[in-house]
Amino acid sequence: MTQGGRPRFAAFLAFLTEQAEERGKSEAAILAETAPYLAALVAEDDWLDEAFARPDAGRYQQHLLFCDPLRRFSVVSFVWGPGQATPIHDHMTWGLVGMLRGAEISEGFALRSGVPVKTGEVRLEPGDVIALSPAEGDIHRVRNAHADRVSISIHVYGDDIGRVDRHIFSPEGDVKGFVSGYSNALLPNLWGRA
Amino acid sequence: MTQGGRPRFAAFLAFLTEQAEERGKSEAAILAETAPYLAALVAEDDWLDEAFARPDAGRYQQHLLFCDPLRRFSVVSFVWGPGQATPIHDHMTWGLVGMLRGAEISEGFALRSGVPVKTGEVRLEPGDVIALSPAEGDIHRVRNAHADRVSISIHVYGDDIGRVDRHIFSPEGDVKGFVSGYSNALLPNLWGRA
Ligand SMILES: [Fe+3]
Ligand SMILES: [Fe+3]
Ligand SMILES: [Mg+2]
Repeated sequence: MTQGGRPRFAAFLAFLTEQAEERGKSEAAILAETAPYLAALVAEDDWLDEAFARPDAGRYQQHLLFCDPLRRFSVVSFVWGPGQATPIHDHMTWGLVGMLRGAEISEGFALRSGVPVKTGEVRLEPGDVIALSPAEGDIHRVRNAHADRVSISIHVYGDDIGRVDRHIFSPEGDVKGFVSGYSNALLPNLWGRA
Repeated sequence: MTQGGRPRFAAFLAFLTEQAEERGKSEAAILAETAPYLAALVAEDDWLDEAFARPDAGRYQQHLLFCDPLRRFSVVSFVWGPGQATPIHDHMTWGLVGMLRGAEISEGFALRSGVPVKTGEVRLEPGDVIALSPAEGDIHRVRNAHADRVSISIHVYGDDIGRVDRHIFSPEGDVKGFVSGYSNALLPNLWGRA
């Protein structure tokens, strides 16, 4: 993390906290106003400490960077090793994904008689942001677009996403509950001396 | 940190965040309402992860545990090695000190013609809490009450205390600016799976 990058990320958390306190704010307004700020944040890859950029050979990593104590939002660094992918899943809260490093592919699904049917896909390059809204349909499957390098995206959710009761869908339409947790026991210290 | 202790500390941070949003709340009301909550927290020594309880042979440690992104409060674990002590100092914001483990002695001072004159002292044992108010006079010097063991107190301040411009007073009345910073680059992750 550079001297310049740390305050930039801390300022993003200040923005998210102020926004969380606007109690009547709609999900649509939150997504619309957070997306450009997240896009500006991930447009520069100078602020994520190496500890939160580390892949794991076994599984994609979900490093919590910050969680609001009132569970109004959390920010997570997803680190994809070569070829790693999620199952088809939902979020049960709003979300935003901003691409920081490398690239990922998000395939969207809609349930038809309980079976996930692919509706499209998008490839995210550094600086790109997509929104996830349960009301609009947020079921997707995400994978590293690269078979030979690490990719990292920064996710913002409207809850402590690591403890939300969510769902995984098999291609055949079997549904399983899951709680993602986080990969890390320690968070970055963004505070103190400027 | 036990399974039971982690949610108890997370609940304290939720309380502090809700309180911070009561924008008209006076410093006196903040101190009065936070003190019993902090006392209940430090009455049980089952929630501080070992990483934030580690002393350093050279200097007392100030481990940031959480900082509000809007700098309305921070929570810090002070770890005193045997015989370690602060200089005489102020805080420039409200504070609360809750004794978690061991014991410490806080000597109060008032400036008389710029020279710090001792006004009293208090010994804190586990579960004890004292308040610090710049308006009431918060200049003090703190030391481990034990010469042969580690003591730990949990501090709450009305700012990101590690970056506040503060003052150190020599016994002769010389004043020096200081910014304390924090000892740690990583914070505890209190979130995710319950
Ligand atoms: Fe997702
Ligand atoms: Fe002090
Ligand atoms: Mg506001």
